[in-house]
Amino acid sequence: METLTAAILPQTIRQRPADSHKGTYGRIVLIGGNDNFGGAIIMASAAAVYSGAGLVTTVTAKSNQTSLHDRVPEAIFADITDVSLMVSLITAADTIVIGPGLGTTNQSRATLTTAFENIQADQRVIIDGSAITLVATDQLSLPTAHLIFTPHQMEWQRLSGIAIADQTPQRNRQVVDELHGIVVLKSHHTEIYTATETYRNPLGTPAQATGGMGDTLAGMVGGFVAQFANESQAVLAAVYSHSAIAEELATSQYVVLPHQIITEIPRFMKTHSEK
Amino acid sequence: METLTAAILPQTIRQRPADSHKGTYGRIVLIGGNDNFGGAIIMASAAAVYSGAGLVTTVTAKSNQTSLHDRVPEAIFADITDVSLMVSLITAADTIVIGPGLGTTNQSRATLTTAFENIQADQRVIIDGSAITLVATDQLSLPTAHLIFTPHQMEWQRLSGIAIADQTPQRNRQVVDELHGIVVLKSHHTEIYTATETYRNPLGTPAQATGGMGDTLAGMVGGFVAQFANESQAVLAAVYSHSAIAEELATSQYVVLPHQIITEIPRFMKTHSEK
Amino acid sequence: METLTAAILPQTIRQRPADSHKGTYGRIVLIGGNDNFGGAIIMASAAAVYSGAGLVTTVTAKSNQTSLHDRVPEAIFADITDVSLMVSLITAADTIVIGPGLGTTNQSRATLTTAFENIQADQRVIIDGSAITLVATDQLSLPTAHLIFTPHQMEWQRLSGIAIADQTPQRNRQVVDELHGIVVLKSHHTEIYTATETYRNPLGTPAQATGGMGDTLAGMVGGFVAQFANESQAVLAAVYSHSAIAEELATSQYVVLPHQIITEIPRFMKTHSEK
Amino acid sequence: METLTAAILPQTIRQRPADSHKGTYGRIVLIGGNDNFGGAIIMASAAAVYSGAGLVTTVTAKSNQTSLHDRVPEAIFADITDVSLMVSLITAADTIVIGPGLGTTNQSRATLTTAFENIQADQRVIIDGSAITLVATDQLSLPTAHLIFTPHQMEWQRLSGIAIADQTPQRNRQVVDELHGIVVLKSHHTEIYTATETYRNPLGTPAQATGGMGDTLAGMVGGFVAQFANESQAVLAAVYSHSAIAEELATSQYVVLPHQIITEIPRFMKTHSEK
Repeated sequence: METLTAAILPQTIRQRPADSHKGTYGRIVLIGGNDNFGGAIIMASAAAVYSGAGLVTTVTAKSNQTSLHDRVPEAIFADITDVSLMVSLITAADTIVIGPGLGTTNQSRATLTTAFENIQADQRVIIDGSAITLVATDQLSLPTAHLIFTPHQMEWQRLSGIAIADQTPQRNRQVVDELHGIVVLKSHHTEIYTATETYRNPLGTPAQATGGMGDTLAGMVGGFVAQFANESQAVLAAVYSHSAIAEELATSQYVVLPHQIITEIPRFMKTHSEK
Repeated sequence: METLTAAILPQTIRQRPADSHKGTYGRIVLIGGNDNFGGAIIMASAAAVYSGAGLVTTVTAKSNQTSLHDRVPEAIFADITDVSLMVSLITAADTIVIGPGLGTTNQSRATLTTAFENIQADQRVIIDGSAITLVATDQLSLPTAHLIFTPHQMEWQRLSGIAIADQTPQRNRQVVDELHGIVVLKSHHTEIYTATETYRNPLGTPAQATGGMGDTLAGMVGGFVAQFANESQAVLAAVYSHSAIAEELATSQYVVLPHQIITEIPRFMKTHSEK
Repeated sequence: METLTAAILPQTIRQRPADSHKGTYGRIVLIGGNDNFGGAIIMASAAAVYSGAGLVTTVTAKSNQTSLHDRVPEAIFADITDVSLMVSLITAADTIVIGPGLGTTNQSRATLTTAFENIQADQRVIIDGSAITLVATDQLSLPTAHLIFTPHQMEWQRLSGIAIADQTPQRNRQVVDELHGIVVLKSHHTEIYTATETYRNPLGTPAQATGGMGDTLAGMVGGFVAQFANESQAVLAAVYSHSAIAEELATSQYVVLPHQIITEIPRFMKTHSEK
Repeated sequence: METLTAAILPQTIRQRPADSHKGTYGRIVLIGGNDNFGGAIIMASAAAVYSGAGLVTTVTAKSNQTSLHDRVPEAIFADITDVSLMVSLITAADTIVIGPGLGTTNQSRATLTTAFENIQADQRVIIDGSAITLVATDQLSLPTAHLIFTPHQMEWQRLSGIAIADQTPQRNRQVVDELHGIVVLKSHHTEIYTATETYRNPLGTPAQATGGMGDTLAGMVGGFVAQFANESQAVLAAVYSHSAIAEELATSQYVVLPHQIITEIPRFMKTHSEK
């Protein structure tokens, strides 16, 4: 297992070409946020915007429209019950993040199934939170695409069938290989399983142990993957950045809140981008 | 009566173990906020989040969903009229805060009664604001649990039957002993009655004399109690922190607003945490 | 005519007694904000809260509930169509601000009339914006109370019958005496007519010439009047503070926005309070 | 083609006369923002307010009312389905911005047509985003007025019939002359075509390549045009300021978000205003 270092950052966070436009940095659709968990998809969407994704659309419950625009006016809103709109948005996207605050109701299930049916092979798809749980409990067949899973340990247990106590790199790797995707296994020190390699994130602070951290990470992974060509590097850099910002904030805060991490992303990325 | 000092802070605000997750810091449910008093439960919820509670859910009127997510995307929303959802949230919680902005209508009464019926003996329950008034006026029987009351002097008069002018430590103690709970009696210099001891908070500034201060304190008490094992210490540290932050802000402000106190909590706790 | 100076500030903004509570600083009700002009009553309410009023309730259109709580969680919301609630709030108030964003529809008129009918002689009432226009156009009889009018020049023309070009201190004074109230005549250099004296505010910057400035001033006048015993002084100090903050901000800003003034009030008041 | 320099700023951003009021700085109406693209009109409106426009009204979908007031309480709200209200607002306005987030549905088309029918010859009209697309696809006849178009390259292709690869200054000029308006052709280095001259903006950073940048520029152009007499200069100064602020922020940020540019406008304008 390799240990991630800050070297991943300038390798990934490249100088933007002068002659570029928002289309250059990806068209990302985030799907989630039911009537209870609106904050989750708002934080994920904000994280994608602040990471520099070119065009961000959020498919969520109508009751989250106002709070989304309030906190992230840069994101476009789409009503999650408007299936044909969601399908056309998915079709036009480069990157899809599905799961933050999606819930596990029948409505959530229907949304996830429809999304999976419309995903194309060249798209990058981050599967997070309740979407992972639904895949596991309903044994949904996964779409053929560039899949990235971001489970915490309990979600990984559900998805992989490996009990938390038994989640060793060796056993995890077996399931990862079957999934044909990248797995970000979130824990005290997050592990990242790419197709060819396993990485350990040496950073992370208990000040981060608060609700919404995972949603924020999912949005950052989406934002990085949307704009950086090397998918594995993008995931690694997003995970590393998320923890590094948290550690910086934790030097002066007892708890670090997700929205505080989001605010710091543009400055952090600049500091650690290719020179 | 003992006078609180800053020594309570590092004793209570412990270093977080590296290998911890949001579950380690408590699952807290806040119940309150009708169609008029939404700000109260929003400030209480924000105070719990900024104090470091692991997972915060807010049970409130539907009309407060958007403003809750706007100000505290980290909090989960639940509609206060969805009784079965509230019951399942209470059942799964470690800590419950009930009262901020709850009101005293029949709907408020029904909510409070249902909450009390579903509280379990090992839970920590902060009873604040209108919930105290309702307990007093309706002579509701209190649940068996770790109860913490946070009345101001008029609410204490209603609950204890002791007129404000007669609220001496001796007379208060008698009623406290009957209540089988901790009482935070808010005034110019707040008094805290634990099972065995009475404390006086030497801090506090008239710059704090503004609406929402009590709601913020209730949320902080909830947040501290949710994550720190020693319940009495947690209450004392929350009360002390709330006033200490207000005093700091009052050196440069004529009035200190509740939301400004909330914003300072993570930094203040870090400064005064166990080294 | 006397020219206001900063001396009015420490005379008015007194040290708060240590043993005080939110009730000491007034119970203020602000009435206004229809479906179009919600921002006006939100800014007025925020100005009252940041000025240090003890307990602030905002009576406004239901469609403004969320944005009010979002920007000012410290304010309590009441639906302007709930007449009996409004009446009970007025009855319990010390200070009433009516007019910001109220509009001039039949609904506005009905609200204003009901408010006037329920105002008591010992209350302080700030009449602003559309309320002034309605008083003028409908020739409403004014309640007996401590009245404070805050017209701009066109509103004063409507109320006084004096064309803007003819608004000299002498002519204004005649109408002021008939009104039995204080008049704050807003212009490039605002004039304040108390019962016995006329003052000229020497401050003010064209950077302030933007929508919402007057609503903010009305809220500040309400906040000052609610907590400071000398009514005339309170009005003078509010007017002076509003312009002085604007001038400070204008040293580094081409335009000064109302919400930026509001944010500065607590710090400004501290700097200029009684030592 | 002339290259813009900072010299345009003090020539345009004049000292405000002491004896001025909000009416001096223009009455601007912004029209756009359907149920999906509310963020666009909110950012445009905020940009107009922060640029110093005197009185700002936003005509948008009802579902955007709360988020508009949350982010810009200084703006007045009008429901886009209330046609007679929109017409009276247009009639009373000096400057109209139409297009940000308007969409291209039948509702959008009807709004645009009605707006065009009610525009007067002496008004300044910024036509942006979907409004440009609708003009092109529906071959709407343009109103006689002071027109300013702010297309990106694809929108210009639709409007002018010139494919992006063929958009040379010479070919663009021909169409501009037929349009009888100013054209701001947004790209890596934006070009501005006035009646008599063509300018190239030397500023601009790929950190700006993110959704909402164009909406923000449209609002700034509106805000500048509303208050500065020389229309061409106002457009040039707005374009230059927008990019200059972005470049400043990009020295410490990897991506620059539209709302961050908006916040900086008052300070930037002060620094570069007439001394």
